[in-house]
Formats: sequence, structure tokens, C-alpha cells
Amino acid sequence: MSEITAHGEKKLVLAAGRAHPELAQEIAKELETELLPIDAYDFANGEIYVRSAESVRGTDAFVIQAHPAPLNNWLMEQLIMIDSLKRASAKRITVVSPFYPYARQDKKGRGREPISARLVADLYKTAGADRIMSVDLHTSQIQGFFDGPVDHLMAIPLLADYIRTRVEADNITVVSPDTGRVRVAEQWAERLGGAPLAFVHKSRDLTVPNQAVSKTVVGQIEGRTCVLIDDMIDTGGTISGAVQVLKNAGAKDVIIACTHAVFSEPAAQRLADSGAREVVVTNTLPIPADKRFPQLTVLSIAPLIARAIREVFDDGSVTSLFDGNA
Amino acid sequence: MSEITAHGEKKLVLAAGRAHPELAQEIAKELETELLPIDAYDFANGEIYVRSAESVRGTDAFVIQAHPAPLNNWLMEQLIMIDSLKRASAKRITVVSPFYPYARQDKKGRGREPISARLVADLYKTAGADRIMSVDLHTSQIQGFFDGPVDHLMAIPLLADYIRTRVEADNITVVSPDTGRVRVAEQWAERLGGAPLAFVHKSRDLTVPNQAVSKTVVGQIEGRTCVLIDDMIDTGGTISGAVQVLKNAGAKDVIIACTHAVFSEPAAQRLADSGAREVVVTNTLPIPADKRFPQLTVLSIAPLIARAIREVFDDGSVTSLFDGNA
Amino acid sequence: MSEITAHGEKKLVLAAGRAHPELAQEIAKELETELLPIDAYDFANGEIYVRSAESVRGTDAFVIQAHPAPLNNWLMEQLIMIDSLKRASAKRITVVSPFYPYARQDKKGRGREPISARLVADLYKTAGADRIMSVDLHTSQIQGFFDGPVDHLMAIPLLADYIRTRVEADNITVVSPDTGRVRVAEQWAERLGGAPLAFVHKSRDLTVPNQAVSKTVVGQIEGRTCVLIDDMIDTGGTISGAVQVLKNAGAKDVIIACTHAVFSEPAAQRLADSGAREVVVTNTLPIPADKRFPQLTVLSIAPLIARAIREVFDDGSVTSLFDGNA
Amino acid sequence: MSEITAHGEKKLVLAAGRAHPELAQEIAKELETELLPIDAYDFANGEIYVRSAESVRGTDAFVIQAHPAPLNNWLMEQLIMIDSLKRASAKRITVVSPFYPYARQDKKGRGREPISARLVADLYKTAGADRIMSVDLHTSQIQGFFDGPVDHLMAIPLLADYIRTRVEADNITVVSPDTGRVRVAEQWAERLGGAPLAFVHKSRDLTVPNQAVSKTVVGQIEGRTCVLIDDMIDTGGTISGAVQVLKNAGAKDVIIACTHAVFSEPAAQRLADSGAREVVVTNTLPIPADKRFPQLTVLSIAPLIARAIREVFDDGSVTSLFDGNA
Amino acid sequence: MSEITAHGEKKLVLAAGRAHPELAQEIAKELETELLPIDAYDFANGEIYVRSAESVRGTDAFVIQAHPAPLNNWLMEQLIMIDSLKRASAKRITVVSPFYPYARQDKKGRGREPISARLVADLYKTAGADRIMSVDLHTSQIQGFFDGPVDHLMAIPLLADYIRTRVEADNITVVSPDTGRVRVAEQWAERLGGAPLAFVHKSRDLTVPNQAVSKTVVGQIEGRTCVLIDDMIDTGGTISGAVQVLKNAGAKDVIIACTHAVFSEPAAQRLADSGAREVVVTNTLPIPADKRFPQLTVLSIAPLIARAIREVFDDGSVTSLFDGNA
Amino acid sequence: MSEITAHGEKKLVLAAGRAHPELAQEIAKELETELLPIDAYDFANGEIYVRSAESVRGTDAFVIQAHPAPLNNWLMEQLIMIDSLKRASAKRITVVSPFYPYARQDKKGRGREPISARLVADLYKTAGADRIMSVDLHTSQIQGFFDGPVDHLMAIPLLADYIRTRVEADNITVVSPDTGRVRVAEQWAERLGGAPLAFVHKSRDLTVPNQAVSKTVVGQIEGRTCVLIDDMIDTGGTISGAVQVLKNAGAKDVIIACTHAVFSEPAAQRLADSGAREVVVTNTLPIPADKRFPQLTVLSIAPLIARAIREVFDDGSVTSLFDGNA
Repeated sequence: MSEITAHGEKKLVLAAGRAHPELAQEIAKELETELLPIDAYDFANGEIYVRSAESVRGTDAFVIQAHPAPLNNWLMEQLIMIDSLKRASAKRITVVSPFYPYARQDKKGRGREPISARLVADLYKTAGADRIMSVDLHTSQIQGFFDGPVDHLMAIPLLADYIRTRVEADNITVVSPDTGRVRVAEQWAERLGGAPLAFVHKSRDLTVPNQAVSKTVVGQIEGRTCVLIDDMIDTGGTISGAVQVLKNAGAKDVIIACTHAVFSEPAAQRLADSGAREVVVTNTLPIPADKRFPQLTVLSIAPLIARAIREVFDDGSVTSLFDGNA
Repeated sequence: MSEITAHGEKKLVLAAGRAHPELAQEIAKELETELLPIDAYDFANGEIYVRSAESVRGTDAFVIQAHPAPLNNWLMEQLIMIDSLKRASAKRITVVSPFYPYARQDKKGRGREPISARLVADLYKTAGADRIMSVDLHTSQIQGFFDGPVDHLMAIPLLADYIRTRVEADNITVVSPDTGRVRVAEQWAERLGGAPLAFVHKSRDLTVPNQAVSKTVVGQIEGRTCVLIDDMIDTGGTISGAVQVLKNAGAKDVIIACTHAVFSEPAAQRLADSGAREVVVTNTLPIPADKRFPQLTVLSIAPLIARAIREVFDDGSVTSLFDGNA
Repeated sequence: MSEITAHGEKKLVLAAGRAHPELAQEIAKELETELLPIDAYDFANGEIYVRSAESVRGTDAFVIQAHPAPLNNWLMEQLIMIDSLKRASAKRITVVSPFYPYARQDKKGRGREPISARLVADLYKTAGADRIMSVDLHTSQIQGFFDGPVDHLMAIPLLADYIRTRVEADNITVVSPDTGRVRVAEQWAERLGGAPLAFVHKSRDLTVPNQAVSKTVVGQIEGRTCVLIDDMIDTGGTISGAVQVLKNAGAKDVIIACTHAVFSEPAAQRLADSGAREVVVTNTLPIPADKRFPQLTVLSIAPLIARAIREVFDDGSVTSLFDGNA
Repeated sequence: MSEITAHGEKKLVLAAGRAHPELAQEIAKELETELLPIDAYDFANGEIYVRSAESVRGTDAFVIQAHPAPLNNWLMEQLIMIDSLKRASAKRITVVSPFYPYARQDKKGRGREPISARLVADLYKTAGADRIMSVDLHTSQIQGFFDGPVDHLMAIPLLADYIRTRVEADNITVVSPDTGRVRVAEQWAERLGGAPLAFVHKSRDLTVPNQAVSKTVVGQIEGRTCVLIDDMIDTGGTISGAVQVLKNAGAKDVIIACTHAVFSEPAAQRLADSGAREVVVTNTLPIPADKRFPQLTVLSIAPLIARAIREVFDDGSVTSLFDGNA
Repeated sequence: MSEITAHGEKKLVLAAGRAHPELAQEIAKELETELLPIDAYDFANGEIYVRSAESVRGTDAFVIQAHPAPLNNWLMEQLIMIDSLKRASAKRITVVSPFYPYARQDKKGRGREPISARLVADLYKTAGADRIMSVDLHTSQIQGFFDGPVDHLMAIPLLADYIRTRVEADNITVVSPDTGRVRVAEQWAERLGGAPLAFVHKSRDLTVPNQAVSKTVVGQIEGRTCVLIDDMIDTGGTISGAVQVLKNAGAKDVIIACTHAVFSEPAAQRLADSGAREVVVTNTLPIPADKRFPQLTVLSIAPLIARAIREVFDDGSVTSLFDGNA
Repeated sequence: MSEITAHGEKKLVLAAGRAHPELAQEIAKELETELLPIDAYDFANGEIYVRSAESVRGTDAFVIQAHPAPLNNWLMEQLIMIDSLKRASAKRITVVSPFYPYARQDKKGRGREPISARLVADLYKTAGADRIMSVDLHTSQIQGFFDGPVDHLMAIPLLADYIRTRVEADNITVVSPDTGRVRVAEQWAERLGGAPLAFVHKSRDLTVPNQAVSKTVVGQIEGRTCVLIDDMIDTGGTISGAVQVLKNAGAKDVIIACTHAVFSEPAAQRLADSGAREVVVTNTLPIPADKRFPQLTVLSIAPLIARAIREVFDDGSVTSLFDGNA
């Protein structure tokens, strides 16, 4: 007989980069397993070395990496991890990048610009990734940048459910900090029971001829609790300015809700001083102690990611985690 | 001597599908050339046959196709044309699809949806396209779906300059018919000298407790001439409804401006009856006589496409056609 | 321990396009399962939308589509279904196209023609297909157009076994309607016990000097029952003409046997009036009531396809279904 | 100014493998140039080394190789030459393989067979070939195996024009040696002014009950000069047998016409003894002195290949060399 | 319910080319299985035909081929086998090439040279290989030529352990026959307990002014047993010359150890006459009786390859076979 | 007439990253042109933005980037530049990376290691690079990691010609600091007129039983001027240690020659204190003032790179710059 047979078995391993060990540990704990032991260090000139201390042959490998600054470093580390897993015969490799790198560069706004978000998708593919899992992509179209399955997790339910415990829904107006995220604000509004919408943008005041353009709010916000939403806060300039505009326009209160706390300098200070009652974010990115401030609330994204990884491994449905919307 | 040398020369040819011959002819005329003579016909079961009657070896070929209904037919015709040009040794092949097919399916709105706009980009690539030229993509991110250069032309300047001849800029409010195009409305507003913005969406009326959700407008439009913008009008339901909402909310006048006149039934009737003062579109899609109505103005996109083709052929700058924004 | 293990399991799903629901249902019934519930509809401008209502993660998916007119529509639907299954994490995707689209365009007959049959193979691959299953390809070389496994099923045994119940084998001559299918006629002849061969083609009559070229038959058919074979009947012109030539040359009787009943207008009428005693086809394509006529016999291909799908899923042998010839 | 400009120029080079130097030299002479000087030798274990002695940077390179036995050796040499030219920055690489290797393995005749002709196309592509030029492919569908332009040259005009000088056209019957090449015989017949067709195959004799199957001829050949055509003659068994069958069936005379003279042992002897009046072939393959025999006529394919190479280089039309049929 | 489920199972098959049947048989025996029955033969012009007599659908196939002269033939046979297995739906295909073809051509030593070792990796990939297994690659960098997992087995432990039974370790100096393998010699030295190193190369004698360059040895070898190592012995010229240099320089004794016994003419005679006490090799290549000589010892590589195949099939660790170094 | 023709012209542009502006400027000056004006900056979280201020359509673009620390940052910047040039329709893109990133990770030294040097080649390809130019790759095999032309420039002639001006050739011994670069040392020796070789490695002292392993030198260096060569100096530990070993073993003098001055801390101090008479390097990497020390000599690589770029642009011969060895 010219065949040897054996029963099929599948094995899940979690490989984590060095950018945000707390999140990776938390995901592993949720899944009641441990992270793959990996030797990783930097050469003196910045070159990165990684190697798994255990065999990964035939495994369903999830490569978890966060992307705070220095972002390019963590991205290259993740690519090298993928390469090493591919060459070590992992059966399937899923990139888990809660905050997708270069998501803001998702189109040519002007001629001769790069589309770095597409480039990143291609780099993942080239290194050996079969699939991508991410949270709240800057634009949903980024799913189409990857030639393969993308599990797009949403933090809105997590954040919105928390907001509901803090404000009476009837009094909420959902506000987009610019014209580009009004559609997302609408999704928030639906989640919050049909709340009204508003957005902040630069405009002429119609009532004053020849006036210079300045930031104004479009929509009714007077006397209402504004939930000012965004996918990421980088230096915090735009969002803090929006709080001020809303306050000036008569908002009773402002709560900022945002998935990705990039918090580059001087975001923490700006947010603390912005006048917002509360700033609610998730831990898709590490938030060191010196960037935390009294009004900040951090919700953990780890249970959501862990459940999604389990569904992927079990050939279950990630969509079902979001009532069909993923 | 083991080499034969010759001077390099480059040759431009325009190959046009059968979907919109008038546009192709007009482009050729602008370029002071003629369309490539192509034999194209349908087999009885719908299979398409195409063949150029002239050699295309070594040419810089532009494959112009419009995509009205039956859209899949025209898309396949274009793919087959590309295949035939590739196999006939065209040197470079540029897809010219003024209305990008399946542009609305640019993301997974729900789990298990296709991303057909990415699929179309891949089909073009597979058939042999090196580059894509299109007008006013539904979302700019579609540029990132193609692994190569995309020349994204904009009809906003063409449309807006016409609008300026019809309305006094000071009295305009630019209105997005839903929450997803407020950013585009803002680009219009800038082009129209800093006009204020508004958008229509479903919302609760804050002043009436427990009222059902209905379409309302957010932003100041009372007494103003609303320029209601969109990238495409398909059956015209949403946009006609928006005209009504604006009128009810006190708008003095409404002008609809839109790039792609898909005009599926019963769009023409709906628009004619909508109460809009004028409906301004381009001819990226053919508009047969029975879909024309008194308020309709059609601007030709041919000069813009012709200029862009010439720049591409001459290694000039397409960006320069739009003040750096393409 | 840094690994989670689980037993491997495999799941088969049947996804069917809208072109020929009866065939898909019949295949499902043969396999004692049900078709995947799929939402599929057309946008007003012809764009197609599809989405599975159930999770397909990790499945071995078979995408069944027939390709009658409007063929390009059904092909695009199938490509979009493949894209959606790929992005929804199906593990393996097999195209089941009983009548391979554009099979006749399998070579450049003249310079600058496309090779659309190769293009179709590439489009399937690009959309995400891992394998193809088809019935009686126009030429066997089409198997080589796809970079992966092609299960090429044959209807000859099904058709020939039926013919044997209708005619005495000793009296049969197998006839090819043109010079291109004499090799296939020979395969039929072997299946029918070594029957003699003939073919119809345009030729000068040697006995009459200077006579014009007309259709003649080469081979002995006088007084014999001719089985006139072809892979597909489109408008029926060639095959009906061949019946006449055979009758004129003294054939006792003619039976037409053909796998793919394309039956474009006016095929049904032509065949009914052709003088053929019987026309035997399979249901690889839908045959609506108005294209059926008294002499028509339709054999179901569903049991064959169902058996092949099961073998593929079970890692059995499709070759064994054809005594080693597939 | 941040640009350096120069005039474009293109350069043609001919690189030849070691399989058939006479043909390569003849092509070079036709083009009034010389072959690229190449160092090529074998390592003791059969590994091949090649290196151009001159720079090929930016050239339009044609890699001429014939494929007699040991065929795999010459194929690998050609692949290695392509690799070296690609890495040496040739601008475009065209494979010139007059006799396409493994052309007979163009489909899966039985389950689990390779499709080696497709594999060869992929190997050429992988090594770096942009285009293929070949003569009289075993089946035209092989054009579709390559993802790029294939210039398919035809020797039929060359051979047929010669035949016309040797026989009166009115007395010719064109004969296919088996059922698979009747379509090609028809093309010959058209070229020879509408000559009648016949083919040889295994069949029962209808006039003798229960007789065993033997080779017979279908079609009228009595008293006529049969032109027995084929694309290649390997060991010569089939074609010599066909001569005998034709003679026995009353043919006045037989001339064999064939493009590729593979002439494996004992082809030369068989053909010399076959009874054929003349055997006409081309020099797509080398024919050493010990394989030549009195009835053999060898026509040179070099002028045709040289003209085609020149058209490709000049962006002219290869199709025009064949009245539109290539 | 729209799903059919079944338990996953995996099946290993060993497919062997015709170059070295003894080795393949030995591997099969170690694995307690049999080789896949394969029909393989040559056409008269050298084209190869292969076909498995059993179904391979869904299998984990290992394609074992050795690469002695005529190397190109065996390489093409292996590529065709891979193609046939891919098209026959093998699930995963691992190339097992103990002596990697063209390993010496792993870089451009001069301009315009090919990098044939990379080409071979690409040919394997194109044909359908998912993974490669090889023994003692000429340079380790060849692992990086393949875009996928490479299991690089090492014969040094096998050879060195044997050497230890033949010589007292304290008296060994490990010698590289040229400057390019000193690093490998160092690995040997470590395996042999820290033995000193030396190498042979062309140099001026410092003590004699103006003397011509000749082969000299660098390092202390006087009175010691030299283990002269190499990865392959082709014609044996370099290595036999090195034995002489070592003897002349005062070496007490020389043992040659080498993985790949290419043994092109006149290697066997040269080695027999070289003065080496023993020549130790493995059977990665067949060594016919007429190339064996008294001092030759052949160790079998089959157990090592068999263990590695089993680990790959079982998703075990190949690295563990080499204490982490593979 | 359906064609527009124009004369071909080619345009060279130099695009430079921000890692080493002096080198890029110097190359531009050698070519008598200017660098492309590029807007490049970092977002607060480390994401990089680049955009050319001038059109690059149709150009032959060279993307110059050095790779000092933070290396991953400069690599990503280069990839993004390539993406932007590709999407802006540059005709051909050549990566100019004088110090190839991750060159040391060119193989799997142990199981489960990445091959990052191959990954880098793939990342370049994916981003859109057509060609690579680099200087003194860590191993020549890296050329084979890229699927396209690699122009491998050599600094040895530059460095060796300088050394010849500093030492009398007759007194030189070329020394490799470890066993891996003895082959390169031999190339140096040839360039320096046949100088003798030596290398440093860990070994037992044969004259002292049971002695521990320590660094020793193999080869004659007593009383000679040692030219200690390497491709790169990172932290300088190995090379400084080698100087000491050589001095202790009686070397008269030591000159260090090395192409890539990585000079991570504390390389500069170590080298200054090492006892070497002179340290000669090139400027493939920037060497800031605080890393310069009295014994350091920096030769400019710019003229060599500029000449090579010019040859590439002119379709001349880069090989000719090195007497055939590139």
C-alpha cells in the first residue's frame, strides 16, 4: 500500500511582537493559552531578529502586533515574524493589527502621493500573511486593499454600550469632528437609539458678510450632551478644537469616544484641558502612565479580539459577533 | 557587430467598446485622430467577439468603455478587448472607464459581502491592463484597489464652473444627499468660494417626543439655493426625496449636480417631477433621448478625458489639470 | 503550553448562481443536502449583488453556475460569488461550470484575436477559484488554460449508452459535422463498439469538372443510421445542414447527439424541421419549454456532477468515474 | 532642473543556444547581423553554463533555440539563457522555439497526466520571457498556455507553395494520417485550391461481418496523388503505415509534407522505404547527414523567422506575413 | 441543513523519479511504506512522460529525485511529476532533492552570468512545489531562493560521527580545499571537538622573492591527520590536488569527507590514486559499481531523509533532528 | 489614420530619502543634475509621508536611500517612495541601497529563523522596484534573492587602490576577521598583487594540551602589515579583537579596510583604541562628526554609484566598470 494516513488535527498559536505585550498577554489569557515563546531583539543598527523557541509546523498562527511609535519598527518586526513563521511551515498566518498602520494614507489626495495603506496590505501578503484582522479601520475600503479575508472588528458596540451607562440616550447628539466621518457618526447614532447628528467644519458665517472662514458646527447641539466620535486621536488638535467649538455653540457637555488612542505629544495634555467631561478609548495601542489623565477611560479590546480569533480558528462566524455587520 | 539599432518611437491608439460610441468619437476628435477600427459582435448566446482590423504592435493603447446597463456585458467586452490587445503586443494598455463599474461595492458593509470594486480592478489587471483612468470614483480609496497607476479625473471643476454661471455664489448652500458624501460636498463648497454645507439624513425630530424617524436636513438652507451634489444618480429615489426635504425646509431653489447619469428607470421621470430647477450631469454614460427632460443639462467630459490621455501619452502631468489635486 | 489543538473537520457547501436553479437543486438532491441560502439580486443598472446568508468559513465550497444567455451576466455573477466566498474565508473554492464560457475562443484563429477561454480561466483564478469542474470542454486543451486542477467530466458515456438503447450498434456510422471534431467522433465510435466514421465538409465534387465548392460528406453513410455528434448546438445551422447532406447522400436515418444545448434562436425550429429522428442532449444549460420540440430528449447531467463533487470532497478519484480517462 | 533626458533608441540582439547553430546563423544572415557572442559549456555533471560576452542592457533580445534530442538539455539551456539576459537587464526577451517542446502533451488524455506544454510556457515565463515565437504548434490552443503574446508562424504556405511546383493541383487529395488533424488537412486543401480530403484511421470493414479492426482510409483517393500531411514526424511509424494504406487503397502517388522533422530512429529508414515519392520538411530541427535520404527535401524556415523577428522589432505586423491569419 | 461534514484525514505518498531508485526505495522502507506506482518513460526525442497509477487527490506528496548526469533530464522529469501531481489535486507537494541542482551557480560571479540556483527554485515553485527538502546546500543562502519553507538537512553529523570512529579526535586538523569553505570547515571542527583549521589556496611563498604563485596550505597540519572536507566532489581535481599539497606539507594522513559524490570522470581514479587513506561520502547521488574504489566508504542518507519526511508529515520538528540547527 | 506618433525620449530622475542627504547630493553633482524635490515628513506617530513636487511620469527613477539606524524607518520611507513613484507612472524604478538592509540575515542559521534579506528583496519588488543597485553585499548570493536585475557594485578596487598608496604591497598579508570571509580576503589579495592570506578564529592551541579555546590567527603574519578586511563594522568588537590578536601574534602593523561604516556604539571608540594604524571606509552610510576619530579615512562611493547610474540609464555596461566582474 503506497499511502500513510493519519488523523487531521489543527493547532492554534499566538505570536506577539514587542510593541504592546500587555494586550497580547490579555488576549492569550482570554483564550486560556500562552503566547509562543519568541526570542526577539535589536541589532545595534536597528535590525530586528526574531525566532520562535518552539516548533510552529502546521499551526494556525496569529501574529499580534500593535503599532504605536516607532511604528515602522513594529511593522518591520511583524513582517519578519511572518516571514519566519512561513519558512518554519506554519499552515496559516493571520495578521492581528488592531490599529492598522498607515490607515490614513488610503488614497491619493493629491497627485504623486503614495497609497501607503495599500502598500502595507501588500507587504503583509508578500511576507506570507493569509488573512488580516483589525479593529475600526480608518475607512472600510481598506478591507479591499488585501487580497484575502479581512476580519474587520468594530469597537463601536463596546464604546457605545459604555456611553449608554454614562449619559441618558435622549439627550445625546453624535458629532463628527470633520466632514469625513459623518457616516460613522450616523452608525453611532443608530447604536445610540437614533440620536441626532452634527459635524464641525470650516465655513463662512452666513450672517456676517465677508467674514473669514472659521470652524463652525452644523446641526443642533445647544443644550445637548455631545458624543464627539473619531477612529483615532493623534496629537489631539482637531478633536480638542471641536470640543471648544461645541461648547461655544452651547453644548451642555462633551464626551469624546475614540477607538485608537495614538496620543502623540501633546495629545494627553490637550485632551485633559479640552473641557471634555470624559474621554473614552480602547487599548488597541499601549497608553503609558504618563499619557493618562483624570478624564480618561480605557476599555479593553482584548475580549473582542480573543473571541474573533477563536471563531476564526474554529471556522465559526466572526460576523455573528456583530449581528451580521462584519 | 551583433546588434541592430533603430530610433524609438511611440504610437497612441484609441480602442473603443460599443457601449457609448458618441463619447469615444468625441474624445478621438478632441485628439485629432480616429478610433481604431475594431470588429466587434455578439454570438447568439451572448459571447462577445472583438478584433482590431489594424496592427497595434508596440502601441500605447487606451481602451475606452462606458458602463451603462447591461453593465456586465460592457465590462466583459472591455476585458476581452484588453486581452486581444495584450496578445497582439500592445506595449502599454490603459483602461479608460469614466464610470468605474461596481464602484458602490467598495467594502464589506456586512459579513460575507463581496468587494466587487476590488474584483473589477483585479480583472482589469489580469486581462492585461497596466493603468486605469476614471472620473469621480465613488470613493477615492478605489485608487488603492489597483496595483498600478490610476489617473483619477475630477468633474467637479467642470460642473462647478457651470453652476457659477447659473447662480450667485453667495446664495449657495452645498447639500449632501446622505451622510456619506459630506466630505465631497465640502470640496464643492471650497470650489464655490466657501459656501456653507448641509446634509440630509434620517433622524428623530428633537422637538417632538417619541416621534418616528424621518428624513430631515442638518444645516442652514432656508431661503438659499441648494446645490445638491452626488457622484451618480441611479433610480433617482434618494436625490428626488432630498429635493423635497430641502423644499419643505424652506430652500429657495434646488440644483442637482452629478457626474454619472446612470438614470435607471424611473430616474428621468422622478427628476423631472422633483421640483429641482436644473439637473446638471456629464456624459460619462450615454443618455438616450427618452431619458432626457427639460431641466436636464449635459456637459461633455470628452475634452477632459482627451487632455488626460494626451498628458499620459506625452509623459506630461495629469495632476496639473487639477491644480495638483489628482 | 502555547498551543490550542482541535480535531480537523471538513465541510462541503454548494453555492449556486441564478442561471439554472433546476440543475443546482438536482445536484444538491443527489448529494442529499441543500444549496447554500444566498441573497442575490441586480441593481437597476445591472450590477449584481450576492451574499451568503450562512457562514462559509473553512468550507470546501462548490460554486455552480450555468452559462446560457446573457452569458456575461452569469459569468460576472459567478466571479462575484467566488470573491465573496474567498473574503468570507472559504477554505477551497471549486468552480462548477458545466458549459465552459467562451470555450470556442480557445485560440487565435487570426492575428489580433483574443483567447477568451484563457481569459476566463484567469478571471476565475483571480477571483479566488482553486479548481474548475466542467463537462465536455470544446477542446481538451482548455484544461491547460487553468493553473490548477481541472476535473473534466465527459457526457459521452451517458449519451452513448442512451443511443445504444435506440439503435442497433452494427448499423451506426458516427459523423462529425465538420473537420474539427473527427477525433471526438472517433471516441464516440470506440464507445459504440468500433463504428465507422464520416465527416461533412466543403469540397469540390471530383467527378464534375469546375464545379463550385459545396458541402459533401466524406465516408460511407449510405443506408446507415448516422449519429451526428457535436459538443454544442448554438443556432443549429451547421448541424441541421449536415442532416440534410447526410440524407441527400443516402443515410437511412440521423440521430443528433450533443452535450450542450445552447439553442439560440432559431435552433429549436431548425432542429425540429431538420429531418433528424431524435436530438439527444444533456441539461448542462437550461432548456425552457418554448425551446423543446417533439424529437428532443434531455438527459440529466446532475448525477454525474454530483458524483464528481463527492469524489473531490472525499479525496476520492474522479478518474475512476470514467475508467481512467479524466 | 531635476531631470536628465536622452533620445530613446532600441537595439535588437539574437542569442542562440547550441542545439542548431546552422539555423541561428541563417536567421542572423537574413537579418544582416551577427549572433551575440555567448560562452556556453557543460559542467562534467551536465550542468550548463552560459554568459554573453557583450552587454545586452536595454536590448530587445531574441533567444533562438531548437529542441531536438536531448530535448530537456536544450530547454534548460534556453531557460538559463533567458535568466542570464533578464538579470543582465535586457529590456524585452522573446523566446524563439521553432519546434515547441512537449507540444504533444497539451491536455490530460487520462487522469493524473501532466500538461507539459503548459508547464513549458510557465517555465519560459518564470525564467523571464515576455513573448514566444514558434512555428506550427501541435495545436493552436497552445498559444493560450502563455500569458503574453505568442507569434504563431505557419509553414503551410512555404510547404504548399513548394508542393504546387511538384504536382498538378487538380490531382491532389490531402490526407490526414489520423483523426486529429483533419482540420489542418482542410487548411492545406484550401491553400491547394480546394482539394478533396481524406483521413486514415482504425475501423471495421463494413462489408465483412465480424472482421477485426484495421487501418483504413476514409475519403476518395483512388488514382490520385495524396499529399499526406503532419506537423511532426517522430519515429515515422504512423506516417509510413499511412503511405502503405493509401497505396493499397489505390493512390497513384504519395507525397509527405511535414513541418518538424524530429526523425528519431528509425524514421529516416522507414521514410526512405515507405514508398512515398517525396518527403518535404523544414529545418526547424537539425537534420544530420545520416538522417538524410534520397526522397528528402528540406526547405529553410529561416527567412520566415527572420521576417517575423524584424516585424516584432519594428512594431510591424506579423499577421501581415500570413494574410491576416496569425 | 446546507453543509456536509466529514472528518479530516491526511495521507502521505512518496513519488520517485527514475534517477536513483535505490535511494527512494530505501527511504520508503524506512517509512514502512511503498513508493507510488508511476508510469514513466521517454519519447524517442527525449520528451518525458509520467503518470501515477493511483489517485493522489488530497495527499501530502513528496517528490524524490536525485540529480546525477544527465542532470537536466532528471530535473525536467521532476518538474513534470510535480505538474502532474498538482493537476491531480495533491494537497501539498514537497520537492525532495538531496543534491540541489545548479547549486554552484548561486550568484553572478561576473556580469551577465545567470543565477541558475535561483532559477531552479523558481521552476520548482512554478511547477507547483510548496516546499523543498535538500541536503547540505552548496551555500545556505540558497534557502532564501525559494519563496516558502526549505528543510535543509545536514550530513555533517552523519559523516563526522563516522570519522570519529576512524581517527582519534585529538589528532585531527580540519582542512578546507579552498578559501570559500573555511566557515564550513569550522562547523566540522566544532563537531569534532574543537579541532584546528587549515585551508589550501594559491599564494606566493613569502620566503622566496618573486616566486610564482602556487598552491600552499595555510594552518598547521604537520604530523596531523587532515580531514579534508567539501560539499561535493565533481571531477575530483581540486580535492586530489589538495591531498597532495597536504602530504607535501607534512600531513601524517588525509581523510576526505564529502556529502555529494558527483564523481564525474575521472573522479574515481583520481581519488583512488590521491593518497587519501579513506574517502567518505553519502548516497545522495547514485554511485555505480564502476565508480567505486577500495578507499571509498558510502554512508546512507536515507534514514535522515525518512525521519525528516515523517516530521514534516506529522507537523513535528525537523530542527530537532539537528539540535536546533536547521 | 488611427494612430498618433511621437519620438521616444527617456528621462532620468534621482529621488533621495532623508537618511543620508550628503551622499545623494554628491551623486547628483557627479551626474550634473539635481535631486527631485520631494516633500517628506513624519506624522507624530512615526508614519512617513512623501510626495514629489514635480511630475515623474515616464521617468527612469533611481531611489537612493542609505540605511543607518533607525534602519526600519529608512527602509519604510524608501518603500513608500517607490509606491508613490509607481503610482505616479514612473516608467522604471531602480532601488539604490548602497548598504543593503538586513544583509546579515541571509540564511536560516538555525531552525525557525527568518531570511530577512530575502524578505527585503520581496518588499522592494512588491512596492514596485524593477531593479536594485547595491555595494558590496554581505554575500553575493543576495543577488539571487531579487527576481530581476541587481547591479552589484564593488568598493574593493576603490579601497585597495587607496591601500596601495599607503603600504608597500610586498609586505601585506590580507586577514579575514573570521572564517566566513576568507574568500573575500582572497579577492583582496589578488587585487593587491597576490598577497598571502590569514584569518582569525577560535581554536585550541595545539602545543598546549587541554587548553581552553581562544582566538588565534591561522596564517603567517609575523612582521607583516596586516590589512584586516570586512564588509561592515557594526559595534566594532570582532574587528578590534582581531587587531589585538594580530598584534599579539607579531604583526608589524594593522590597517582596517571596510566598505560599510555602520559604527554603532561604541565602534568609534573601540577602533580609535584598537591599535590599528588606519581605518579606511567608504561613505555608503553617514558618519556623523562624533563618530570620526584620528585614524579614520573616508573614501567617497558617490563617483562609483553615479557612473553606474549613468550606465544603467544609457543602457551601457556596469560590468565594464569592474573589468567584467559585476
